[in-house]
Amino acid sequence: MTTPTRRLAHLISASSPSDLPPHVVHEAKRSILNWLGAALGGCRDESVHLALSALSEFTGPPHATVIGRATRVDALNAALVNGISSNILDFDDCHARVVVHPAASIACALLALSQTRPVRGIDFLHALVLGVEVECRLLDPRTAQYKFAWSPTTTVAGMGAAAACARALRLTEQQIAWALGIAATQASGLRETGGSMSKALNAGHSAHCGLSAALLAARGFTGSESALEGVNGFIVAFGDPGDMEALVDAWGSNWHIELNTYKAFPCGIVTHPAIDACLELHRQGIRPAEIASVQLTVHPVAVRLTGRENPAAPLEAKLSVAHCAAAALTRGKVTVREFDPDAIADPQVSRLRRATRAAINEAYAIDEAQVEVTLADGRTIRKHVDHPVGSLERPLSDGQLEEKLRALSEGVLTDAQVNALIAAVWSLDRAENADVLADACQALR
Amino acid sequence: MTTPTRRLAHLISASSPSDLPPHVVHEAKRSILNWLGAALGGCRDESVHLALSALSEFTGPPHATVIGRATRVDALNAALVNGISSNILDFDDCHARVVVHPAASIACALLALSQTRPVRGIDFLHALVLGVEVECRLLDPRTAQYKFAWSPTTTVAGMGAAAACARALRLTEQQIAWALGIAATQASGLRETGGSMSKALNAGHSAHCGLSAALLAARGFTGSESALEGVNGFIVAFGDPGDMEALVDAWGSNWHIELNTYKAFPCGIVTHPAIDACLELHRQGIRPAEIASVQLTVHPVAVRLTGRENPAAPLEAKLSVAHCAAAALTRGKVTVREFDPDAIADPQVSRLRRATRAAINEAYAIDEAQVEVTLADGRTIRKHVDHPVGSLERPLSDGQLEEKLRALSEGVLTDAQVNALIAAVWSLDRAENADVLADACQALR
Repeated sequence: MTTPTRRLAHLISASSPSDLPPHVVHEAKRSILNWLGAALGGCRDESVHLALSALSEFTGPPHATVIGRATRVDALNAALVNGISSNILDFDDCHARVVVHPAASIACALLALSQTRPVRGIDFLHALVLGVEVECRLLDPRTAQYKFAWSPTTTVAGMGAAAACARALRLTEQQIAWALGIAATQASGLRETGGSMSKALNAGHSAHCGLSAALLAARGFTGSESALEGVNGFIVAFGDPGDMEALVDAWGSNWHIELNTYKAFPCGIVTHPAIDACLELHRQGIRPAEIASVQLTVHPVAVRLTGRENPAAPLEAKLSVAHCAAAALTRGKVTVREFDPDAIADPQVSRLRRATRAAINEAYAIDEAQVEVTLADGRTIRKHVDHPVGSLERPLSDGQLEEKLRALSEGVLTDAQVNALIAAVWSLDRAENADVLADACQALR
Repeated sequence: MTTPTRRLAHLISASSPSDLPPHVVHEAKRSILNWLGAALGGCRDESVHLALSALSEFTGPPHATVIGRATRVDALNAALVNGISSNILDFDDCHARVVVHPAASIACALLALSQTRPVRGIDFLHALVLGVEVECRLLDPRTAQYKFAWSPTTTVAGMGAAAACARALRLTEQQIAWALGIAATQASGLRETGGSMSKALNAGHSAHCGLSAALLAARGFTGSESALEGVNGFIVAFGDPGDMEALVDAWGSNWHIELNTYKAFPCGIVTHPAIDACLELHRQGIRPAEIASVQLTVHPVAVRLTGRENPAAPLEAKLSVAHCAAAALTRGKVTVREFDPDAIADPQVSRLRRATRAAINEAYAIDEAQVEVTLADGRTIRKHVDHPVGSLERPLSDGQLEEKLRALSEGVLTDAQVNALIAAVWSLDRAENADVLADACQALR
């Protein structure tokens, strides 16, 4: 009897970089560029500093890069700490169909692994594509319906990272099944973490779990071979099972990474259409001082996830659509700085945030929003957004992704380092050893 | 507004060793004795060897004991590896009311911690009592009903370990709440792992997560302060919420560790009443060769968890009530050796296993069983057990716990070492530094 877990392991084991069309390899590079930008922007955050200081006394041989820092730690701790950096700004990638930010945990695990074992550049890209594929298939609504309390990105990230590392380690089908099984029983991640540092820790923890699952399985440490679909397995525990065929069907005809998108704003993805509309109103010349009130109309999940009306701290402001809208209308841009404490306390932003209401429209798509501002003179002006910038319909270009990385690397890497890093990403498929990537994002101090 | 998570953190922070009556301190020592026995018996298992070899290249400064081995590793990895040793034999403790094996993850985390920070013996015991309290209150049926697919011991073990380590580190109420929050979002553990090494890894992973949660919180790394009861928190994610008051009510009037029991047989606890009945039949002189068939009557959960009819490997045999019964009837004892491959392959055991059927009686208590053997001459003999040896009603004595540890330490520690270890446990409340415990279970080779 071949279980779905085992069948998935077989597909991973039998997959080859040559199965990937050039545009898929290119999208994997774009995912890496975006991930590194987010991580370089986040790497000097207090959360990363605290994690490093807590873990430093336990770290093993310093083989692995801490992104954007001069420090090295052991590979497992590097995967963990880099995962925090990758997520702390909320500047992730985002799959356009399945609600998941797929790259961070997988890429952090692979980056650390590539500094302990030789991994060719094309194998790094291939492994990333496979990891994203596993995550998205697990979250496919055909596979299961999961409870809302679970942070979907986090719950599947360890299995994505395990699959990717298992492939990069060239494990056998049996070992890959074990790696998936070990990662499945360590799957975790609560949405309740939103607003605390432990939300970003989720990404690092998953990277750590996925990498260690693959390393354990490589030695012969056994996991359940029905860990995904079994009656007491991942899917039953986390949700209501659907059709397990969705885990494996039509494998290779398309790759989920083709549907990956990259955030234009460093905050919850569901706030993006409202931000986009507010920025357009600002571009049209509407000044914050003339605005009396703001009425947002959004998808229900946008209110559920980002309904915070009075964010007190940066990590909360990133999950407050009212703050995002107020900042966009006031400042005409939404960068990392719009979530700084002084931006949260800015009197104009505060006033507009209090004057903002968010209503639900059940008929809206999740990336749809409308903003109606009422001016002091009584006029109302409306802006509707179908798809925000950064969505699949209005994607960031390669150049915009480079610019995003450049802006986020400011004060972390030198210009020469950033240029070298960008070049390393675009040429990764031709690199003999993928550790060039880790070397290129190590800071000088 | 004080959240239940925060109230629990307050109770932990305000608790003092002087709150514990002597019999509670004594039960904590009994729990430690049992845990160390199980870990010393398990520490030479292949799973422990594989985990150590996979993790050795990443381990930090060797400050912490690997139980029953000469090796030392960093404290986080020690917590992980010792957790595997503690669980791999299925020789745990077992709470008599809540389905949980509480001590292993908590004690492994504390043991490792005590080798990095000074922890007084009485504080180690106090922290263990608090950790068990947190686990059992989370699993209290009044708090929530959880999905069966979750391994209850595992899901709460990280939070128990985090609470214990947080108290041993003398964290503030705020930090304890963060530690609980960090551990909650890393809570995991699937029953599907049964039969694979990853079941034992669950215990180690939880110890690792709980210890690191406390260490992170100690530095100021933040977790959600509503991680347990929030709408997207632990209890909602893992089950159906009940009354959150159960997390904190009647605190200190009794302690859950008072209801801890210790297994007499190294296998799933739900098999124990049937084993006990079979051993009694063997004592009555019934020889395996005369038995034609065996009819077990057990609680439904016993079949659900241990219904395996044809176990192929030791870890599966421990979850096969048919194997347990057959081994007891054949050999008149159920020790670690009755789960060795040669015991599984033993023709007489095999024959009786195939001749054993397990029926469910919905009216049975979980620790109740009946065995009816039909002999070759047509006679039937019946034995009913209300509570097996090792249960709260028929507990192992202090002397029996010492004997259990002695038997399990054979070939691992010298007699002198075992004597010193037992003495260290009984005098732990008077020890200036709890690291005597870790030193005492380090092997010479």
